Amino acid sequence: MRPQDIITKKRDGERLSKDEIFSFIEGVTDESWADYQITALIMAMYLNELNLEEQSFITQAMLESGDVLDFSDVEKPKADKHSTGGVGDKTSLIIAPIAAACGLAVPMISGRGLGHTGGTLDKLESIEGFNVNLTTKEFKEIVRTCGYAMAGQTAEIAPADKKIYALRDATATVSTIPLIVASIMSKKLAEGLDVLVLDVKTGNGAFMAQMKDAQRLAKAMVDTGNSCGVKTEALITDMNQPLGKFVGNSLEVYECIKVLRGECVEGMQEMMDVSTELIVRMLLMSGLANSENEAKSKIKDVLASGEAFEKFRQNVELQNGSTKVCDDPELLVDKELLKFEIESLNDGFVNEIQTTKIGSAICEIGGGRLKAEDSIDAKVGYQCELKLGNKVNKGDVLGVLYCRNESQVNSISEKLQNSYKISDEQPEKLNLIKELIS
Amino acid sequence: MRPQDIITKKRDGERLSKDEIFSFIEGVTDESWADYQITALIMAMYLNELNLEEQSFITQAMLESGDVLDFSDVEKPKADKHSTGGVGDKTSLIIAPIAAACGLAVPMISGRGLGHTGGTLDKLESIEGFNVNLTTKEFKEIVRTCGYAMAGQTAEIAPADKKIYALRDATATVSTIPLIVASIMSKKLAEGLDVLVLDVKTGNGAFMAQMKDAQRLAKAMVDTGNSCGVKTEALITDMNQPLGKFVGNSLEVYECIKVLRGECVEGMQEMMDVSTELIVRMLLMSGLANSENEAKSKIKDVLASGEAFEKFRQNVELQNGSTKVCDDPELLVDKELLKFEIESLNDGFVNEIQTTKIGSAICEIGGGRLKAEDSIDAKVGYQCELKLGNKVNKGDVLGVLYCRNESQVNSISEKLQNSYKISDEQPEKLNLIKELIS
Repeated sequence: MRPQDIITKKRDGERLSKDEIFSFIEGVTDESWADYQITALIMAMYLNELNLEEQSFITQAMLESGDVLDFSDVEKPKADKHSTGGVGDKTSLIIAPIAAACGLAVPMISGRGLGHTGGTLDKLESIEGFNVNLTTKEFKEIVRTCGYAMAGQTAEIAPADKKIYALRDATATVSTIPLIVASIMSKKLAEGLDVLVLDVKTGNGAFMAQMKDAQRLAKAMVDTGNSCGVKTEALITDMNQPLGKFVGNSLEVYECIKVLRGECVEGMQEMMDVSTELIVRMLLMSGLANSENEAKSKIKDVLASGEAFEKFRQNVELQNGSTKVCDDPELLVDKELLKFEIESLNDGFVNEIQTTKIGSAICEIGGGRLKAEDSIDAKVGYQCELKLGNKVNKGDVLGVLYCRNESQVNSISEKLQNSYKISDEQPEKLNLIKELIS
Repeated sequence: MRPQDIITKKRDGERLSKDEIFSFIEGVTDESWADYQITALIMAMYLNELNLEEQSFITQAMLESGDVLDFSDVEKPKADKHSTGGVGDKTSLIIAPIAAACGLAVPMISGRGLGHTGGTLDKLESIEGFNVNLTTKEFKEIVRTCGYAMAGQTAEIAPADKKIYALRDATATVSTIPLIVASIMSKKLAEGLDVLVLDVKTGNGAFMAQMKDAQRLAKAMVDTGNSCGVKTEALITDMNQPLGKFVGNSLEVYECIKVLRGECVEGMQEMMDVSTELIVRMLLMSGLANSENEAKSKIKDVLASGEAFEKFRQNVELQNGSTKVCDDPELLVDKELLKFEIESLNDGFVNEIQTTKIGSAICEIGGGRLKAEDSIDAKVGYQCELKLGNKVNKGDVLGVLYCRNESQVNSISEKLQNSYKISDEQPEKLNLIKELIS
């Protein structure tokens, strides 16, 4: 099949057959398609769309472009969670050990942060020595030993996705649901899962700011997962403010360890609540619990008994991280940092927090990446003191910026301050969990 | 300006500014845009279109990516003709010498054949020694000396067009009017013209099979030419059968020399008629004639006096071709070739000739190119005996195939035979010249 003929069909708005889509993805993998042909087809797919069937074919083809992990010798149900990304979204770090402690095997392949959103790999690397570059063999062994492992996409996992994603990034074709679905799902399905729960964020800090877009994306991923033989559900959750108390890689790990140690303080609870709801779906779908209540009490038990925390410690050890932070999480908060309090300019209630702005501000001082090749400063970040609906007086502390120097303060403190809209009316409380798509 | 931002705008259906379009074309020329970014934007332009203003900007930007010929020292009006291509379309070879004999300077930059259509450069190269690879200096000198020159696009002429055209060919984005216009017009405007006439073909052997598409293309080119300061008109002409008597490079040159020598026989007249109408437009626009009649009598005069033929001979000589074919055109008809008569299977009238099929059949036996890098067999071809509307009896000769061997006969003779639809009704005569767009 000639690339031109396949491009022509999609250019003219026709449906591509399974053979055509597989031929495209094979061409990406074996390099018989030139990059400039790949991007022409991708733009035609972006503008003329893919239907559910085509979306499922491209996911499968990308999945089959690489290795699929084989956990057939692991008896536990294999389950994972994926989030579409947000600000302060650190739930993976507590979901994996809790789910593992509840009896699931969690082979979690994660990504890095880009733009205003963070990435699990970056957060983990703020633990001294933690190695996210595992070989497939190491990855599987760690899952077998402690119930979960966390690593980056290896060259063997969905290589076509890796190449296509880089090209999409350079050609303004990232933001289209069928290709987002194929990219996420091909990697997740390569984990050899039985069960997958998706955390689709919506709100002003999410890629899908509008509820209807989040619903479309969630539905598309759930359908694709199920059509590929993996039980899949999605929760649409709120991203109209940073999730939990901290934003910033090291600070977010700090928050997670506090929660796992049972030292959850005010501001962290919502992060724990979202995590709980996601683990509940994993336990129900995998048959390890028969009701929400049963699932929730299991989660409570493994937290109270310290089993979840022990899983975390064991994983850090197995991935070569220093476990000192498990015993003394304060080590993750750099004492040399400058702490600058962001104060409210008005009296009233917090009516709006421009979440993307907060994420971008922290990114600007090195807490995240503007381009994939940027390095980051794991230590800097932001502590949320007041959240949506809180009453506030002029001069009250909205949050605390952790940064390196005065010049960083000058460059972003106003931006942080302006992220908050304070007004007289008390806003309605937003639902943290907006919808279950199954 | 980042490529991604420009791609995003066109992806979202927005109009690109002059600066954005020039930044794109500069990026193509200086290679700061990657090929995969160029094709993503081109596909977005294909699907979301360009308006007349954008089309004019991209033409200008492509024109300015290279050299513009300077003929300010030539006093004659500078004029050229461009055809959108067809089967047996050889008019350039007689238009240039006739127009030159009438007092115009014709700096004609031409292309090669691709697919079912022929190209002027290929035809010229069937004259022994004829050199179409002229430097800009040689090209200008020959125009000055004999009134016309015919050469390929040099690396200095619209280099951005050359690169973009190759990428469009590989990504199924050739067939879109704004980019066709920009590609044709950037090269033609680089000739430093005062006057340009376009021969836009329509019918079953043309790229624009439908009249309304031909009209759109003609209108777009005329507007772009005039907006760039070149007097431009277009004739929409019929391509529902091969133009003239022969199809095939060497045979077409034979036909042209016969016409220039005043030995025009039946079957060649329509080719002469189309050429005449196109030269008339050139003479009127350039002010060398004040009426159609005056223009036509000038053309008649330079043919009858042999002046046009002498221009042709002089040009062949200046471009290093052997002038033997001028004195003995039969040299262009290879006597070693096998001649195979294509016979009618029915009685009736010729109601349809599938022109593209005839062009493709000749291309298949080497008379044309499937891919730009293919070499060709200049000698093979087809002689049309019966044309649309002719009465025919079963067994009558529809045309004669000139080929190398029996296996070529076997591979395409049926295809040629099936290109003709013979039925009882006598069809209405088609107009050769369908519309003047000015």
